[in-house]
Amino acid sequence: MLKATITVRLKDGIDDPEGKSIRRSLELLGFESISEVKVVKQYIIYMNYNPQDGKNMAEEMVKKLFVNPVIHSYDIRVEEI
Amino acid sequence: MLKATITVRLKDGIDDPEGKSIRRSLELLGFESISEVKVVKQYIIYMNYNPQDGKNMAEEMVKKLFVNPVIHSYDIRVEEI
Repeated sequence: MLKATITVRLKDGIDDPEGKSIRRSLELLGFESISEVKVVKQYIIYMNYNPQDGKNMAEEMVKKLFVNPVIHSYDIRVEEI
Repeated sequence: MLKATITVRLKDGIDDPEGKSIRRSLELLGFESISEVKVVKQYIIYMNYNPQDGKNMAEEMVKKLFVNPVIHSYDIRVEEI
C-alpha cells in the first residue's frame, strides 16, 4: 500500500480570499498581531500501486484534478506503508 | 516574526464527504487502485508575538476558530522566521 501526500498552495502573489477572511475573523476575536494567513490543502491518497508507478500516478492526478498551474504550486510525497 | 502551522484533520471514523467525492472523481479519470482519500487543511499564520505567547495564541485560535473538537484533531507547529 502506498500513501501519497499531495500539498497544494497558492503561488506567491496570488490573492488568498479565504486567508484574508480568516485574518479578519482572528482580528475580530482579539488577535491583533497577525500579519498574514495562508491556507494550504493536503490530499492524502491511499493506493495500491508499486512505488515507481505510484509516484507517476500521483503526478498525473495532480495535473488532472488537484492543481491549476496558473495559481497553484504543489509537492508530492509518496511513502510505502 | 513567528510562523504558526496549524494542521486540521478529521478524526478516524468521521465521514469525509470531500475525500469520497475526490476518490470517485479519480476513479472516473481512470485511477482504479485508490482505496481512500483524506483531505487535510493547514493554516499558516504569520504573527508578531514572542515565541512563548505565540504558541499559546495559536492554541487559543485553534479552539476559537479552526477546530470542532467533536470531529477534528489538530497539531500546531510554531517557528521563528
